[in-house]
Amino acid sequence: MIEELALKTDSKILLLVLDGVGGLPKKARLPSVGQGYTELETAKTPNLDKLAQKSITGLTDAVAPGITPGSGPAHLSLFGYNPIKYQIGRGVLEALGVGVSLNPEDIAARGNFATVDAEGLIIDRRAGRISTEVNQKICKRLQTEINKICAGGTSLPDGQQAGAFGRENVKVEVMPGKEHRFVLVFRGSGLDERITETDPQKTGNPPLICKPLVPEAEKTARIVNIFVNKAKSILSPPRSDKRSGTEPANMVLLRGFAKLPKLKLMQERFKLTPAAIATYPMYRGLASLVGMDVLETGYTIEDEILTLKKYWKQYNFFYLHIKKTDSFGEDGNFENKVKIIEEIDKYVPILLELVHQSTDNVFVITGDHSTPSLLKAHSWHPNPFLLYSKWIIPDSAKRFTERECMRGGLGHFNAVDAIPLMLAHALKLKKFGA
Amino acid sequence: MIEELALKTDSKILLLVLDGVGGLPKKARLPSVGQGYTELETAKTPNLDKLAQKSITGLTDAVAPGITPGSGPAHLSLFGYNPIKYQIGRGVLEALGVGVSLNPEDIAARGNFATVDAEGLIIDRRAGRISTEVNQKICKRLQTEINKICAGGTSLPDGQQAGAFGRENVKVEVMPGKEHRFVLVFRGSGLDERITETDPQKTGNPPLICKPLVPEAEKTARIVNIFVNKAKSILSPPRSDKRSGTEPANMVLLRGFAKLPKLKLMQERFKLTPAAIATYPMYRGLASLVGMDVLETGYTIEDEILTLKKYWKQYNFFYLHIKKTDSFGEDGNFENKVKIIEEIDKYVPILLELVHQSTDNVFVITGDHSTPSLLKAHSWHPNPFLLYSKWIIPDSAKRFTERECMRGGLGHFNAVDAIPLMLAHALKLKKFGA
Repeated sequence: MIEELALKTDSKILLLVLDGVGGLPKKARLPSVGQGYTELETAKTPNLDKLAQKSITGLTDAVAPGITPGSGPAHLSLFGYNPIKYQIGRGVLEALGVGVSLNPEDIAARGNFATVDAEGLIIDRRAGRISTEVNQKICKRLQTEINKICAGGTSLPDGQQAGAFGRENVKVEVMPGKEHRFVLVFRGSGLDERITETDPQKTGNPPLICKPLVPEAEKTARIVNIFVNKAKSILSPPRSDKRSGTEPANMVLLRGFAKLPKLKLMQERFKLTPAAIATYPMYRGLASLVGMDVLETGYTIEDEILTLKKYWKQYNFFYLHIKKTDSFGEDGNFENKVKIIEEIDKYVPILLELVHQSTDNVFVITGDHSTPSLLKAHSWHPNPFLLYSKWIIPDSAKRFTERECMRGGLGHFNAVDAIPLMLAHALKLKKFGA
Repeated sequence: MIEELALKTDSKILLLVLDGVGGLPKKARLPSVGQGYTELETAKTPNLDKLAQKSITGLTDAVAPGITPGSGPAHLSLFGYNPIKYQIGRGVLEALGVGVSLNPEDIAARGNFATVDAEGLIIDRRAGRISTEVNQKICKRLQTEINKICAGGTSLPDGQQAGAFGRENVKVEVMPGKEHRFVLVFRGSGLDERITETDPQKTGNPPLICKPLVPEAEKTARIVNIFVNKAKSILSPPRSDKRSGTEPANMVLLRGFAKLPKLKLMQERFKLTPAAIATYPMYRGLASLVGMDVLETGYTIEDEILTLKKYWKQYNFFYLHIKKTDSFGEDGNFENKVKIIEEIDKYVPILLELVHQSTDNVFVITGDHSTPSLLKAHSWHPNPFLLYSKWIIPDSAKRFTERECMRGGLGHFNAVDAIPLMLAHALKLKKFGA
């Protein structure tokens, strides 16, 4: 419905996402830490406090009550895409995470380096969690030795005509992730992600042969099996050819084969000209999925703010992502998460200066999901949400915290409604019916 | 589900709709106006305040968060009909708005008088916004000269048998609206609204020929084209026959062809005997769409209250509509909107006297949509909602205002759930399951 109502106007929307900002209260062990307060409650945030008093607040569930979202669904929801309807395959997310850009025809998979015994049975699904450096070396070797696979498959003698599935080459890309993880991308035409995984997800079994789930995926399954066999012989060459002794990473396990999801872009759905400012590849990738221009930026919060200022005139929707709130949450580092929130607070006046350049501009601050330091992980707790616009009734919130937002005037809503609310307050939606 | 649970009982429900009552806070320019308060917050409403303290409150979205509804969808939702599922065509709404009653077979369209040049190209889609008086004269002329159209069409010589679509006459009604707007109704059988519009929605083009979108609509499209041609020759007669010189309104443009939506009536769905008290045709029409008896009433709020008293014993559901809150909102007249709210407040004790006649009666006060004086238009802001019944837990609301309702015990909900809540509190719903 929003798509039929959206209007192209000049007013701007700034969506500031503090990744994982929601937390849980921590009882004081040190006198310097608040008694039973969350990270947001503990932080000294004079600018956010002042803003909250002029804003309307609420809480959002990224997916549904009780559901802990990954970064993919949490962001899709904030971008206005129902994350249950639009699921991003694991392989695609991993590819975005290492900064590989995908074309609609490509297939990405998440890979693990693993250890198999002499019989080919899996001893360790993570190859003893080899270091990222070793991983990088192995990936480089695989990439050099397998940069394309003939779609006709090894079963065809050279020169013979290929059958129904064509014989064109498929390009292979192997990109290292952290520790034992890597990303595998096949680029070519006629690829189909409806194939089985090769990771049996337990030790004592051999890796599985990849099988097509539909006839159209036969070529892809064949390519996967060729890749696995080639990778195996490279990682664990015959004794006579051995270059580097027995290695723990002597096998690959593949799962989460996926293509890019088919999404109508924000430009088309919401008539926005959207841009993303984010430092981590995953978030840059997610933003590009929905059509945002991903702007070049540096690694600090200050760099990101400078980028925002630089491009402010050129777009009318900005997604500004700050990662460190989540990183410190994941580390269980309550104090540093508090410090990052305090650092962000210092930039609020600069952001407001931009927002105030036009009366119908809208400024939203929220998280994608919560990452309480006490849980050291993403959680299901709803996200504090703040909306600042000329066209609101300010509620009673005195600060931008979980507890103040609980009583907020926007109530408790699904994050997928955040975009309609932002568009409405920026006067970018026509009336529904007469 | 409600339909299977609804019980016929004597308890009464009074739904008082203050059209567009929700507002936005206005900064004081005159000392008499509140500092940063909405119309409801500014108004002195001792009776509503006292009622709010014994009630449970909340906020409703007529359609969805961020969506600004027209009066049609906003009312359907309050009457318990999902406004996305049941969309009322533009022509039908216009017909209701001028007080034309429609039968299920009829087709209504919204018309514009327009100006075309010698080549028949549109110069002005609104004929220079002719006055309502001129409009009334033109409509009278059209109505006199075209009161029926032969369904067989002009292409058939007189006396010849018509084909598959029959040859019966279709009655034509032309009703003036405001300025350049009119309503066109075709009454007959076998009419089908699946036809294209004749309004190209831009100048410099000729009006479009009406085309059927499905074979069943061929007859209707033919009738529309006959009407347009006849109207054109009447409005802009050949020079030799010219009665009144060059007129700006020398063409008609038609759009929004629609039949009545197919709705199960409130009687059947909710086992109610419903009545409507409203002064404006649009709301009387909307109420009749869902099966309400539309009561004769005068034009003041007092008249409406007297009508309610008169019919109180005869029905068990009353929709009492007050228009002026919306009218002053649309005019941007904050002060008069406040005064109307204060006037309504005076009648609250009389309404409560009626409600108190039986212990299980329910009284709801809400808006259909918000119309902040500051926006001079309908808006997306949720509606304050108050429910008074013996069977509630009063919340902390001290007044019937947007901000008090934000923290209300009913929370933030979709207006389509208002009817189930009213039925439940009136003990009109059976248990679901065992």
